[in-house]
Amino acid sequence: MEKNYNIVSIIRKKRDGDILTQDEIRHLIDAYTADKVPDYQFSAFLMAVFINGLNDEESAALTEAMLHSGIVVDLSSIPGKKVDKHSTGGVGDKLSLILAPIVAAAGIPVPMISGRGLGHTGGTLDKLESIPGFSVDADLKRYEEILKRHNLVLIGQTAEIAPADKKIYALRDVTATVESIPLIAGSIMSKKLAEGIDALVLDVKYGAGAFMKTVEDATKLATALVGIGERFGKETIAYLTKMQEPLGYKVGNWLEIEETIDALKGNGPEDTMMISHLLSGTMIYLGGKASSVEEGIKVSHEMVSSGKAFQKWLDIVEEQGGDVKVINKPETYPKAKFEFEIKSDSSGYISKMDAFEIGTASVELGAGRKVKEDPVDAQAGVTLKKKVGDKIEKGETIMTAYTNKPSMIDAATKLLYKAVSISETKPKPEPLVTHIIDKDGTRPFDL
Amino acid sequence: MEKNYNIVSIIRKKRDGDILTQDEIRHLIDAYTADKVPDYQFSAFLMAVFINGLNDEESAALTEAMLHSGIVVDLSSIPGKKVDKHSTGGVGDKLSLILAPIVAAAGIPVPMISGRGLGHTGGTLDKLESIPGFSVDADLKRYEEILKRHNLVLIGQTAEIAPADKKIYALRDVTATVESIPLIAGSIMSKKLAEGIDALVLDVKYGAGAFMKTVEDATKLATALVGIGERFGKETIAYLTKMQEPLGYKVGNWLEIEETIDALKGNGPEDTMMISHLLSGTMIYLGGKASSVEEGIKVSHEMVSSGKAFQKWLDIVEEQGGDVKVINKPETYPKAKFEFEIKSDSSGYISKMDAFEIGTASVELGAGRKVKEDPVDAQAGVTLKKKVGDKIEKGETIMTAYTNKPSMIDAATKLLYKAVSISETKPKPEPLVTHIIDKDGTRPFDL
Repeated sequence: MEKNYNIVSIIRKKRDGDILTQDEIRHLIDAYTADKVPDYQFSAFLMAVFINGLNDEESAALTEAMLHSGIVVDLSSIPGKKVDKHSTGGVGDKLSLILAPIVAAAGIPVPMISGRGLGHTGGTLDKLESIPGFSVDADLKRYEEILKRHNLVLIGQTAEIAPADKKIYALRDVTATVESIPLIAGSIMSKKLAEGIDALVLDVKYGAGAFMKTVEDATKLATALVGIGERFGKETIAYLTKMQEPLGYKVGNWLEIEETIDALKGNGPEDTMMISHLLSGTMIYLGGKASSVEEGIKVSHEMVSSGKAFQKWLDIVEEQGGDVKVINKPETYPKAKFEFEIKSDSSGYISKMDAFEIGTASVELGAGRKVKEDPVDAQAGVTLKKKVGDKIEKGETIMTAYTNKPSMIDAATKLLYKAVSISETKPKPEPLVTHIIDKDGTRPFDL
Repeated sequence: MEKNYNIVSIIRKKRDGDILTQDEIRHLIDAYTADKVPDYQFSAFLMAVFINGLNDEESAALTEAMLHSGIVVDLSSIPGKKVDKHSTGGVGDKLSLILAPIVAAAGIPVPMISGRGLGHTGGTLDKLESIPGFSVDADLKRYEEILKRHNLVLIGQTAEIAPADKKIYALRDVTATVESIPLIAGSIMSKKLAEGIDALVLDVKYGAGAFMKTVEDATKLATALVGIGERFGKETIAYLTKMQEPLGYKVGNWLEIEETIDALKGNGPEDTMMISHLLSGTMIYLGGKASSVEEGIKVSHEMVSSGKAFQKWLDIVEEQGGDVKVINKPETYPKAKFEFEIKSDSSGYISKMDAFEIGTASVELGAGRKVKEDPVDAQAGVTLKKKVGDKIEKGETIMTAYTNKPSMIDAATKLLYKAVSISETKPKPEPLVTHIIDKDGTRPFDL
């Protein structure tokens, strides 16, 4: 092994809890991206960062170095403020698919580069690809073209966008250095800033079904993300939202497209519509098409009730090669080979529908991947018949599960039963959105 | 990158400061030694250990796993208690070369497996190899044979001894994870325990010229080493010794062989002889040939004054292929091509002869290596004409330096001048050996 004193001294500084300079961080990230620093040195650095942390300046420098490892898209030739949304990932979280057409229909360009499913959570790209023919691959020229034509584009990360992030993420995944707030923040923000946005709305989820389990961790992450966004001159607003039970009634790739269609037609579940309108209203406000978030939410409702949002959805599906017929007649979509029901063994009220267990069951059924190379099954997933607070009778169906892998039915059944609790009294409803975090700090959310 | 959940979960535990089980540590070390865990995972583990530490049980488990990664030599067919000594490394530290023949001459088998120079410090193997023909390579069969014949063997680490240590050390060197007490302790003790010893004496150096800069760190390391030794049923005594100025007058490979010859003939420098007799006396006590350390020291003196120690030295040099003629007539050894003097620019007393600067200058002159692959020059080094506390006149020579690399003379000269301080008053003499640490704990040393 060749000894690179420069790199070793950078690792040593972070190991000892010292503050790295912008130059040191840039040098390290550039050298790693160019394959000039071996994985074994970078993983030692990652662990030192995980344990000793990065301060705000170091986090910004890390994000900037990762951002400039690839192309930073210039969308200045497209008029208007470009606004995107990012979620830290949940179960049944199809919000991006709902709000993107709404915001685009309101006249705001939405350049959305999304990711795939991770762990127990689903990914926007996997859901889009369950639409026959839909392509999430595009080079940056086509990305700009689509955005110009529709105010909307829905693609996956290209090799040109933040290649450092791709390489670093793969290493974090195998070295127990995933759950680090500065590393997560750098990963998210380098990709989002590279898209060419002017403003960003963040949905930072916490609770059983989210990566951040506590409101404290979610607050730290959201604060880091907003701080980086503002440092780069992009107005950024984050909401902390609870992810205890799945969002809406459907979990799975095509299943969530079905629920997206319902939502864009104005028939979405209450929880899903509330957060969708909040996030899209905030995007509309940041995009300059409303004078407040409240007014943005009104515009968002109009986009749905007028049919403009659904039309935008049809337009983008068609533009990106998707089968519009099946969007118009979702009942024609082929069903999974096997389906089974989870029934209640007592009467009472649903007091828990654990999003983590349901998400994990959904992965077992085929909707997600255990390793990066696994294919995902468009048809697999879980449909809830009840939500927390609903009354239930003994023998009544709580969930229906769909799979093409009969060998996984046993394991998934156990997980799904484990996910549910029944209580004798009706549980108190809990707020879904608890905090807002922007450049002015953290406040309880109350609209 | 393939994800090994088992390994990732072990890394995660240590990352979070949790305690690893013996099985987890053994599994990780076994898998890494067998090339089943990639370097990038192991380096993340090393950094987590560096920052979060290992407790006594974990340290012992690490040492045991490293020890059993190779052959543990069984020397039970050789009568008597086998005793070795280990030093954590200093400048001008030729003590192993002096005490090994003394102890062997007293009838105690000394199975000594040594290392090479590291950083600013010299290595026993490099010094031995400066003797023309001397071979430090031997397989374990020959190792036992030599030991049986002479009560002494002086070789380098074979591939069969603690291969995990070799692999781990190479990785630590390039990932800023060298200076970790549990990792250092595991590295030292796995090799020493594999030699087949019954007891061990440790010289843990601290100060400017040592790897441990403070008495606190030296105490921690010595306590860890003694703890592991005792856990494995090997009586272990450690001394904490100061390494501010070089030991003796000579720094360099052949130069230190010259001083070894002087010492074994009874003409060694005062500091060198004092510590040599203390360590060899302790080994003689642990080997059962004296009823106390004090009595052991008397035996040690007898071995030198009787000429038995020097004869043992001649015997082992001959056995291992070395040129005995040059040991008997060291003045016939070829000199380095270039020599230059460091002269005092004022009169007074020597108040500092910084071992680190002199050791570093010695490396620049060719006596040590900057990277593992560098050859070392047998002739290069520094001879002190004065020690701390000596009177000096303006213009008088403080040191003479030897090299075959004229391009390095400038850099070395600067370092050597920087190493020296002159004061108007005579500095107070400081004790060289300050503490003794054994199974009963730490006590100030006062013999």
